[in-house]
Amino acid sequence: MKCKVCSGPGVIDIRRHNANFCSEHFLRYCRQQVEKVIHEFRMASPGERLLVAVSGGKDSLALWDLLLELGYEADGLYVGLGIGDYSVESARQVKAFTDRFAAPRGGSLIEVDLRETYDIDVPTAAKVGKRVPCSACGLSKRHLFDKAAIDGGYDALVTGHNLDDEAAVLYGNVMRWQTAYLGRQRPHLPAENGFPRKIKPLVRLSEREMAAYCVLRGIDYQIDECPMAVGNKHLQYKAALNMAEEDTPGMKQAFYFGFLREAVDRFAPDAAAREGGQSNGEPGSDGSTNDAEGSLGLCQRCGSPTNNEVCSFCTLVERTSGHDPVPVELVRRPAKRRQR
Amino acid sequence: MKCKVCSGPGVIDIRRHNANFCSEHFLRYCRQQVEKVIHEFRMASPGERLLVAVSGGKDSLALWDLLLELGYEADGLYVGLGIGDYSVESARQVKAFTDRFAAPRGGSLIEVDLRETYDIDVPTAAKVGKRVPCSACGLSKRHLFDKAAIDGGYDALVTGHNLDDEAAVLYGNVMRWQTAYLGRQRPHLPAENGFPRKIKPLVRLSEREMAAYCVLRGIDYQIDECPMAVGNKHLQYKAALNMAEEDTPGMKQAFYFGFLREAVDRFAPDAAAREGGQSNGEPGSDGSTNDAEGSLGLCQRCGSPTNNEVCSFCTLVERTSGHDPVPVELVRRPAKRRQR
Repeated sequence: MKCKVCSGPGVIDIRRHNANFCSEHFLRYCRQQVEKVIHEFRMASPGERLLVAVSGGKDSLALWDLLLELGYEADGLYVGLGIGDYSVESARQVKAFTDRFAAPRGGSLIEVDLRETYDIDVPTAAKVGKRVPCSACGLSKRHLFDKAAIDGGYDALVTGHNLDDEAAVLYGNVMRWQTAYLGRQRPHLPAENGFPRKIKPLVRLSEREMAAYCVLRGIDYQIDECPMAVGNKHLQYKAALNMAEEDTPGMKQAFYFGFLREAVDRFAPDAAAREGGQSNGEPGSDGSTNDAEGSLGLCQRCGSPTNNEVCSFCTLVERTSGHDPVPVELVRRPAKRRQR
Repeated sequence: MKCKVCSGPGVIDIRRHNANFCSEHFLRYCRQQVEKVIHEFRMASPGERLLVAVSGGKDSLALWDLLLELGYEADGLYVGLGIGDYSVESARQVKAFTDRFAAPRGGSLIEVDLRETYDIDVPTAAKVGKRVPCSACGLSKRHLFDKAAIDGGYDALVTGHNLDDEAAVLYGNVMRWQTAYLGRQRPHLPAENGFPRKIKPLVRLSEREMAAYCVLRGIDYQIDECPMAVGNKHLQYKAALNMAEEDTPGMKQAFYFGFLREAVDRFAPDAAAREGGQSNGEPGSDGSTNDAEGSLGLCQRCGSPTNNEVCSFCTLVERTSGHDPVPVELVRRPAKRRQR
């Protein structure tokens, strides 16, 4: 196995591109794929401040690293979900990465802990609200990601959804013809209605490539799947797509990018009709939706955009903790733009 | 297991409807599903003459039986493809069915043999044309089905595609976002541009239900899969959907009917732009297309609609047999409408 670029010893084969790479040129390939997609979907411009949602897993840590490598000003945001040892280990990985990889290049970590700040955790919220855990978790993360990006005045919220993730979400949306979700499943959603711009620069790279990236860069990460997600539909969709990809390399990329090129616009009116707001085209695993429907007002508790008096997250907090959430600013907005 | 209707001993459970049936009420359920879909998609009216394409398999024989049960005037069309023992056995099953089930209720069988009429067979045509067999086979069947229905003056050509078939074709079209195929994947295509009306009244019934129908009605059928189709994509798509259905009963029906309700119209412009003609939204397993693109003329050999001087089927015949096809009328059009 020889590197496609330098003919040196290859360390990874990428079947859908019919290419092998050595370590150096694989890392370059990853940076190029991120640059390409940022350019193609006009996700961000040099000098903008980006907030990367980091979970401690391979994708989000690799993404933060890649953005810093490419010269973006990128901070990390970690939300402590209170899922036992899994969350403890995830937090540890994020902090270790920050110290070793992010801080030396100017990246700071913002930490929000659901228990400390809102007196809730995902397992309890799921139990009290009779939701599946992925639903309570998704709702909480969406809310806190959005709020932190807005509070901190970031130009965009960046998430580490890779090609496998996006293809699996698309698969679920197509199987059930969730037209409103299909209409907004794009890797770049512009800021609107009080929601931040949201971008997904890893959509040209696979799960396996992100794992290889971390290994080759020496980045440790949380390798366990979330224990609460076991058996959820999303993982089943991934398995179905992996079978197809095994048989026809490139099929996953063709499915996802074919959708963006040929189909998403056809469903856009449904997304617009359904929501005044903006969402990622990702229902929770149970099909839970974003707050926003119709024209948006502001949540009486936290000021976030919602079509109800109190937004879904504050409702979740009230039901789970038994008391109103305390208004907080998650991130202090910098007095002025940092010098690079 | 008790019958949902009469509480007698059940013989089949249908998970997606959460229902068990005894033999009698299962057969009634099948008739009702066919009636329902014929009505819902305005496929046919009482008194119309239907031509059912029969392969000797469970679906097409069950379909012919069901249509006769429901009082339609329905003849059968069998195309001999020359695929060794498989074709010999298929023909035998079709003739046995005709004698025992169709003829007593006024149904006649039309037989067209590729070797006798055109001096070709599917294996040779595939080899000479360097096509995969399913492509040469699909092309030949589409042509002969259309031509027989037109020659015989039938009101519609009826095919035995069941829910599993249509969901698998849809799956393949979606995975590759074949927008022109998606735009015409409907269970009823009206007659146009010299093509007959085409209808698929089994789309509410599954493969398994059709097998059970035949067993309970005492209909023998060809149980082998075509030996040339082994490993084709269509069978892989079916396997993927079967896994999903196992996990979520009803998923296949939701996928297919959700598409008809929510999505097919959005792709219709692509179908119209791509083809002046009409097709079933079913590429051959290799993605082969119908003849018709742009405005249609008539084939100089056989008079079928095509956008070329000579249609794809006549070209296939010429290349495979080494000589021009002899113009034939496959079915003699009845002098006047038969009395029922």
